[in-house]
Amino acid sequence: MPGIGPKSAERLTFHLLRSSKANPDALGKALLELKSGLKYCTHCQMVATDDLCAICTDTSRDRSSVLVVESPLEVIAFEKTSYKGMYHVLHGVLSPLDGMGPEQLKLKELIDRAALEKIDEVIIATNPDTEGEATAIYIRQQLDKKVGRVSRLAHGLPMGADIEFADQVTLREAIAGRRSL
Amino acid sequence: MPGIGPKSAERLTFHLLRSSKANPDALGKALLELKSGLKYCTHCQMVATDDLCAICTDTSRDRSSVLVVESPLEVIAFEKTSYKGMYHVLHGVLSPLDGMGPEQLKLKELIDRAALEKIDEVIIATNPDTEGEATAIYIRQQLDKKVGRVSRLAHGLPMGADIEFADQVTLREAIAGRRSL
Repeated sequence: MPGIGPKSAERLTFHLLRSSKANPDALGKALLELKSGLKYCTHCQMVATDDLCAICTDTSRDRSSVLVVESPLEVIAFEKTSYKGMYHVLHGVLSPLDGMGPEQLKLKELIDRAALEKIDEVIIATNPDTEGEATAIYIRQQLDKKVGRVSRLAHGLPMGADIEFADQVTLREAIAGRRSL
Repeated sequence: MPGIGPKSAERLTFHLLRSSKANPDALGKALLELKSGLKYCTHCQMVATDDLCAICTDTSRDRSSVLVVESPLEVIAFEKTSYKGMYHVLHGVLSPLDGMGPEQLKLKELIDRAALEKIDEVIIATNPDTEGEATAIYIRQQLDKKVGRVSRLAHGLPMGADIEFADQVTLREAIAGRRSL
């Protein structure tokens, strides 16, 4: 497993052996259920233990806004911010060389949601790289006239950055996306 | 000097000794002129060898836009992008604890420029940290009604970033500053 060599494995094993019996049993049980118990939420495609994930069943959230991300890990990242809308997980980005076309992504599910639900805004939050940009543009075309607004996360300088060491593309995007003060 | 220890100094000295006579002489002359020959451009406060820097004397540049930066190094960073307007170097940011008040910055010179020149837009490009933000807000107040528009560089995800590892403040700014696709 990544980051665990023979020495670490030995130390972990002896820790489990020496500790009270509950520990390895609970871990073993959880590991047995890891693959069988885990499904994708039928609504947003996030990992879930039931048909719907905890976010989709939460009635206090704003259902008019959907943030589209590449993977479940990004949902966890956005959940640490004050964002209180819904999500849609694509499980990948368009990348023809890696055999990732529109059919390999959970894109049909997003278009279905746009047709069935009252979505005011879809915020595309794919990574700011070549594949992420291409995917964002493709999704916008597919959602054309199906939702109120399709937007993209802002590109620019991250907080705490040093302009002196910023790359040219980021500086260009930061100038292009400047906002009135 | 930073990054040059006794070993490096020895190697550099012997390189100068062994090479043709022109090298150490030219370097010595340049070093003698480093402090005496260098001034600040009277217009934009960038380092210059004459009263005006190469950017301020370039008639092909767009004089209606002024990018306000903290230090000359940032001018060099922006010169690598396609920005073709003018600059103003503050030589610092507001930082009361370090004794940096508005009088310690080249701020009066900027306000004078705003009064004398026809400036359509001032883009404040101080670093995206606490001092940089405070300085940006202070400058906007000082320039109120003196220029057409005061703007700030976009905050958000830098190009090539991974959303999974982005900090919460950057993600929040990226959502807040989202743009229609």
